[in-house]
Amino acid sequence: MTSPADLLASLRFRYATKQFDPSRKIPADAWEVLEQSLLLSPSSCGPQPWKFLVVNSPELRESLRAASWGQSQVTDASHFVVFLTRTDFSDADLDRWMECLAAAQGSTVESLSGYRSMITGLVTTMLPDQISAWNANQSYIALGQFMASAATLGIDTCPMEGLSPLAYDEILGLADTGYRTVFACAAGYRAATDKYAEMPKARFPLAEVIEHR
Amino acid sequence: MTSPADLLASLRFRYATKQFDPSRKIPADAWEVLEQSLLLSPSSCGPQPWKFLVVNSPELRESLRAASWGQSQVTDASHFVVFLTRTDFSDADLDRWMECLAAAQGSTVESLSGYRSMITGLVTTMLPDQISAWNANQSYIALGQFMASAATLGIDTCPMEGLSPLAYDEILGLADTGYRTVFACAAGYRAATDKYAEMPKARFPLAEVIEHR
Repeated sequence: MTSPADLLASLRFRYATKQFDPSRKIPADAWEVLEQSLLLSPSSCGPQPWKFLVVNSPELRESLRAASWGQSQVTDASHFVVFLTRTDFSDADLDRWMECLAAAQGSTVESLSGYRSMITGLVTTMLPDQISAWNANQSYIALGQFMASAATLGIDTCPMEGLSPLAYDEILGLADTGYRTVFACAAGYRAATDKYAEMPKARFPLAEVIEHR
Repeated sequence: MTSPADLLASLRFRYATKQFDPSRKIPADAWEVLEQSLLLSPSSCGPQPWKFLVVNSPELRESLRAASWGQSQVTDASHFVVFLTRTDFSDADLDRWMECLAAAQGSTVESLSGYRSMITGLVTTMLPDQISAWNANQSYIALGQFMASAATLGIDTCPMEGLSPLAYDEILGLADTGYRTVFACAAGYRAATDKYAEMPKARFPLAEVIEHR
């Protein structure tokens, strides 16, 4: 458990890091827990419609950088994660999720038929584009949990929507896999030269953002 | 700073709490920091296209519960936050954001004209529905940061998409405000009777979710 003051310090520590120190690597034990922050992230109704690609290959990182307006975070950060979302929510996806849930609960898929019907009822009201967007929404939850988790460990991140998802899909060979790129996130340690590290956070006043009713 | 082991314990502590203990309230100092976790949450390009309604009124909570399939979390949790997103991204929104950014950096809005043009260029490629969806995506980042932050403090949460956004908008009087309901999140402390607290998390195997390239 953390104290409110320590948590606040972590929240203030976090900023969208523009320059990473390419010489500093995240220790293995910390990275393992950051992978758990992705794995354990919640998703609506639980089906985890995502995959996370941790790109280590320098060549692949260079290619992705070219598809990200040349931003240095892609190649210089210790770790680079591409967030993929399922393009569909099929019966096979639902089967896979029910089997996972039954195994975790020590029950049977048959006993989950009511829950399955509820999800089916929800999904059948959506158009294909809405399903894909709903799936993608869940990736943003994982992103929020990942960045907040990293900050508590003193690890910097940079969320990146400024990239070409189609070019990423091509580079990563995602055609016909049922997954597509949503965005990416770099993680590592800020460079001493990153001037953004010292800039005050630009936020609207609390009273304009949070209302009590 | 937190250790990886402590962070992992927090991530495992978190689950979608179904029954809250209505007698337990989040202490003021912890709640203030959770509000900061919302305020300090990152958004794409920075414009914070959101508002967070903390609903304290028991009458309002009852009305919202009726618009949430009767789920008890709405009334029983210590705190209940409705996540709103901007329906649009207008020139006035952009002006407001540029003024906020200039004030934080001690610069002028004129000096930010290049950044402003970049955002305008991005937004003008989007249809109105895409802008609204893009705005809403950012709320999910805030949700992820909020829930992960709460978990580090030993505070339980329940993210709730199972509600009628239109009914919420009506109850909360959001017509013509430029904001709409995306989802909600309850926060507080699990009831001793919540059987979900002891259930193992249902997650796909790490090797199926995270790939190294």
